[in-house]
Amino acid sequence: MKLALAQLNYHVGDFESNKNKIISHIKKAKQNGADLVVFSELCVCGYPARDFLEFDEFISQCEASAKAIAAVCTDIACIIGLPTPNHNLEGKDLNNSAYFIENGQVKAIVNKALLPNYDIFDEYRYFEPSTEFGCIDFKGHKIALTICEDLWNTIENPLYITRPMDILIKEQPDVMINIAASPFAYNHDEERIAILGDNAIRYNLPLFYVNHVGAQTEIIFDGGSLVFDNSGKLVDELPYFEETLTYYELAKDGAITLQQPSTAKNVRETDIEQIHQALILGIRDYFYKSGFKSAILGLSGGIDSAVVCALAAEALGAENVMAVLLPSKFSSDHSLKDAEDLVKNLGCKHEVVAIKNITEAIETALHPQFNNLPFNIAEENIQSRSRAIVLMAMCNKFGYILLNTSNKSEAAVGYGTLYGDMCGGISVIGDVYKTQVFELARHINRNKEIIPENSIIKPPSAELRPGQKDTDSLPEYDILDRILFEYIENRCSSAEIIKMGFDEATVKRVIRLTNLAEHKRYQTPPILRVSPKAFGMGRRMPIVGKYLS
Amino acid sequence: MKLALAQLNYHVGDFESNKNKIISHIKKAKQNGADLVVFSELCVCGYPARDFLEFDEFISQCEASAKAIAAVCTDIACIIGLPTPNHNLEGKDLNNSAYFIENGQVKAIVNKALLPNYDIFDEYRYFEPSTEFGCIDFKGHKIALTICEDLWNTIENPLYITRPMDILIKEQPDVMINIAASPFAYNHDEERIAILGDNAIRYNLPLFYVNHVGAQTEIIFDGGSLVFDNSGKLVDELPYFEETLTYYELAKDGAITLQQPSTAKNVRETDIEQIHQALILGIRDYFYKSGFKSAILGLSGGIDSAVVCALAAEALGAENVMAVLLPSKFSSDHSLKDAEDLVKNLGCKHEVVAIKNITEAIETALHPQFNNLPFNIAEENIQSRSRAIVLMAMCNKFGYILLNTSNKSEAAVGYGTLYGDMCGGISVIGDVYKTQVFELARHINRNKEIIPENSIIKPPSAELRPGQKDTDSLPEYDILDRILFEYIENRCSSAEIIKMGFDEATVKRVIRLTNLAEHKRYQTPPILRVSPKAFGMGRRMPIVGKYLS
Repeated sequence: MKLALAQLNYHVGDFESNKNKIISHIKKAKQNGADLVVFSELCVCGYPARDFLEFDEFISQCEASAKAIAAVCTDIACIIGLPTPNHNLEGKDLNNSAYFIENGQVKAIVNKALLPNYDIFDEYRYFEPSTEFGCIDFKGHKIALTICEDLWNTIENPLYITRPMDILIKEQPDVMINIAASPFAYNHDEERIAILGDNAIRYNLPLFYVNHVGAQTEIIFDGGSLVFDNSGKLVDELPYFEETLTYYELAKDGAITLQQPSTAKNVRETDIEQIHQALILGIRDYFYKSGFKSAILGLSGGIDSAVVCALAAEALGAENVMAVLLPSKFSSDHSLKDAEDLVKNLGCKHEVVAIKNITEAIETALHPQFNNLPFNIAEENIQSRSRAIVLMAMCNKFGYILLNTSNKSEAAVGYGTLYGDMCGGISVIGDVYKTQVFELARHINRNKEIIPENSIIKPPSAELRPGQKDTDSLPEYDILDRILFEYIENRCSSAEIIKMGFDEATVKRVIRLTNLAEHKRYQTPPILRVSPKAFGMGRRMPIVGKYLS
Repeated sequence: MKLALAQLNYHVGDFESNKNKIISHIKKAKQNGADLVVFSELCVCGYPARDFLEFDEFISQCEASAKAIAAVCTDIACIIGLPTPNHNLEGKDLNNSAYFIENGQVKAIVNKALLPNYDIFDEYRYFEPSTEFGCIDFKGHKIALTICEDLWNTIENPLYITRPMDILIKEQPDVMINIAASPFAYNHDEERIAILGDNAIRYNLPLFYVNHVGAQTEIIFDGGSLVFDNSGKLVDELPYFEETLTYYELAKDGAITLQQPSTAKNVRETDIEQIHQALILGIRDYFYKSGFKSAILGLSGGIDSAVVCALAAEALGAENVMAVLLPSKFSSDHSLKDAEDLVKNLGCKHEVVAIKNITEAIETALHPQFNNLPFNIAEENIQSRSRAIVLMAMCNKFGYILLNTSNKSEAAVGYGTLYGDMCGGISVIGDVYKTQVFELARHINRNKEIIPENSIIKPPSAELRPGQKDTDSLPEYDILDRILFEYIENRCSSAEIIKMGFDEATVKRVIRLTNLAEHKRYQTPPILRVSPKAFGMGRRMPIVGKYLS
């Protein structure tokens, strides 16, 4: 049997484009003599469709697409994923399904049994888990078809009490196919390879695994579809962050012959290399899928906005990036110079809008109320918010989308101004700790200096008061980020983190700041997710709650 | 057996205060001769605890509280709710549990089987559903104890495939007790009475039902705990929006004697009366539980900010409300006058800060970029954002929390400025349609004129350009709200709504505007939830997605 794996970039809710993409790949695979072409989980509607799934009209559209796709499946079979009505009276209204289509007909329907409902996932919100399992006979093969999470229950202390392959294996299948929607995080590729390889070994079967690629707002799918032989050996690993269609000959004895050179990796990319590619795809798809072309951002001369500017120029083209320098009376000369150097290196557009007269007008208007009270965070925030007003006015006038440039460390401890530098349509590096931002800057500069060296080496500062430095109010970033990682990613208590050797007062202060900033993070833009635990839908904390640590 | 029902207001994560409140009510019930006192679902930690539940330290604290509570349970038994570790290796790490405590010991543990995972609920994110069921013997009675949703599966087309009471009934219990965390929506009291009464009839058993009261950020619990006899007759209905401890004698034959006059209602309150009480509680608990005292808001002279100001004055005391009038060059004379009349009627503090010089400074700074392009939404938004800067600066200087005054109709169609009038710590009427805001204003004025009549009767206007009226760009609110209700609450498609008799172009435009505003709503404050479908955690729509209608 000749199999084709289609690793594609869909758009949530864009039935026309998704359907056309699937159909054109079926035709292409047919031309290339494939017997079966496999698409990914819920490819018909895109993933995650969220509460679109609660609209009957949406489900009808899925079925209509499936019908059109089935119509072209002659002399080739295909597997597609879509939500389908649960015809049992009891239970949720939908199933997360895979259609096996042959001769223009749906020959078999497989429903997902293990429904991820952690981090960013909400599948039990919509779907009834399957309790019925059966293999599919095709061209002399018996296929055990499962959907994503269905294979992810082989670990110790598993999340679910059933394991679909334990039931399917009784029918003696000779191949496993798994269709997935498994989002990127910088450690997730290795985890996938380990878990899926373990399945191949455990069931002594070859495994074909097809993932999504592309970003849906903050969720980035990295592709990296996988093929294992029945010894658990990784025989192919599809490219990351790009679409592809690949072919395999599967013999009756389980032997797999590649129809193209294997792209299985000998050396894995570093986390930073992966994050870099993920962010480029995240920016590009955010703009492309929302129908916008041009980004705007405020350039401070610091490293965060410099990195975001460089990423945006790479993703959208420098000609589609407008960098705005917004000096205040506290801005240092080198800040302007560093920002100008970056603009020159990138070749993007730029403007300079001084905010001094704006902040003065605000402070003057408030003079009767403030009545000579000392300068404090109120005046600091007025500067940050004045910049946001200018940037948003330019968005409204010229149709830009504002890129948010906050990093994960400052988003964590609330070192940012709500409605000020926390504004934006999408947060580019809000899931990248400051220490990782430095690595990213070095990586961007790997071939030549793009981000001015001075932006990288000078002490980070918000420049909202004279001589201000981040370390005046925060620990050094290498300490801060390690504490934050233990609290956010690992959900450790302050006692546990202190036991690791960190200073008690520092730990308690960092965690307290993180908790206090929950109400700010609630109102920030979606954050491109590159870690296993990003702020946003994947981390749902109470706002008015008493925090422990 | 003498039963006590404790309908109390907890605070998520505040173990000390929750524990002390539970213990003091156990002591009080003991003094009053109760055999058993019943608290509500997850009372030990508060509801919803969200991702607090993912911290081991949080779960340990729950167990420590339970131990302290058990220690005072001598000569009286109690039922409390708390998350507990799932000791099975397979499945989620936690159970949503009820402890039956007697003689200082946990005598029985009941785990919740039906886990709500729709709208604002995410229980399957944390909990493993129970598959084991058993009654509890106590003082010659056999108690069928269940947790909230466990009784909510008697409807047609039920969400779950099991029904815990169908299993428990086989042990021939003589009473049902259900502990709940059932949030307010203006139609939910009647739904609860219908479903729970149906359970009493179906199983021919008396039913004691204990709910939470109090607000946890945007989620408002209204109390209204219920007692039914075995014929399904409602024999007691505890007060709404307040704490209470009530007593009942349950005879062996199931007869219930009230130890206080029944508060079961003959006449139900109107939706608006309920919404009014819910919003007062919502504001009060938001401030109290977050440790703040004083609110600030911008007063435009329009009905929305007037209603929010009146609600805040009622919830927090007029002396804790600062109303700021922020006139621009487009503000009409009557706006200032109407706002001043309201301030006088309420007796709250107020300031006037003109924004003309601020908006001029911004426009001047942007002159080189805007270059005489015509006045448009950019300049409109500059006004709205200038007001937000002033209000937020006053928050920062004086420690107020800003109240957002957007209503549900404008939040829906995006008739508001992100980082402008969409700012705030909490949105007070963001789940109240404009037509309901008018009703609310009339209700607030039921005894005397608080909201100036002119604010109610004049045509709504944002006053961001000369002579602007809401109806210049939106349909009349009675049409708009009905279309929105069908789309948001009922999830109808445009085709279905048009079929109801609405104008096709209007329907399509309203739905399009609602979809386009998704990115704005993502960044707005939490909205006090008073309807079955509020914006926020209960409605999770893609941002970059292609919308159908």
